[in-house]
Amino acid sequence: MTRAPRYFEDYPPGAMFEGGPIAVTEADIIDFARRFDPQDMHVDAHKAAQGEFGGLIASGWHTAALMMRLFTEHFLSQASSLASPGIDELRWLRPVRPGDALNLRAAVLTARRSGSKPDRGLVTSLIEVLNQNGEAVMTLKPVSIIRCRPLAGD
Amino acid sequence: MTRAPRYFEDYPPGAMFEGGPIAVTEADIIDFARRFDPQDMHVDAHKAAQGEFGGLIASGWHTAALMMRLFTEHFLSQASSLASPGIDELRWLRPVRPGDALNLRAAVLTARRSGSKPDRGLVTSLIEVLNQNGEAVMTLKPVSIIRCRPLAGD
Repeated sequence: MTRAPRYFEDYPPGAMFEGGPIAVTEADIIDFARRFDPQDMHVDAHKAAQGEFGGLIASGWHTAALMMRLFTEHFLSQASSLASPGIDELRWLRPVRPGDALNLRAAVLTARRSGSKPDRGLVTSLIEVLNQNGEAVMTLKPVSIIRCRPLAGD
Repeated sequence: MTRAPRYFEDYPPGAMFEGGPIAVTEADIIDFARRFDPQDMHVDAHKAAQGEFGGLIASGWHTAALMMRLFTEHFLSQASSLASPGIDELRWLRPVRPGDALNLRAAVLTARRSGSKPDRGLVTSLIEVLNQNGEAVMTLKPVSIIRCRPLAGD
């Protein structure tokens, strides 16, 4: 599915974007965590069952990576996405478990044209990752550097 | 290599922890990004060469995941790591490129015993991820919920 490319001008404050779902399997959770976050709660279903969360849960960084997948598909455009200087206020609110399905909801908070590089702007958004019950499992505020729409003749 | 388990009491403000390196290959960068962040700058070396960074760079979330690997190995302990409510001020300062090697430097900023759950505390740290030239490529301030040392007889 292709959509029209978005540029800085397409992200005014208040603009909303949604997409998903993306499924989370036990195999995915264990595979990610073995590489990057090999704690029992993420890699060992038996030990996880006796632990703090009563069962296997996804690494928070796995949830973040899945969020990024949805963010590239439903928010950013290849034509204009340049970089990100960072994110603020990342919160893991609820565990993500095998069988969950995650959706993205993104709202533009601020959009500021760059002073030094007039071909781009900075967009700050509030991202919510929701599970299949509509509960927020993660929120964060990323900053995205996004190219402006080319002028006719560019 | 095993070390003595750490508990909340082992993370006083000012405590420093270091570890690494972990290597970053082109294949790793492309594999991670195909799954989670399939933008040209992360998955297509040819297009990336013509882009903003002049070559392939790792997804910022890949760098974060590698940070977590180092954080589990050199900061957290399986015996006491319970969860994380989130992180603040994540900054991507420099691109991570194929062939880079990343190290972790962590400093405890605050350590506060939980009021409601006296068996644990909250530790806020400043994490720096440094490349092979000692340059910070990413910084962040995670909060970790960490179990207190068991009393004798527990």
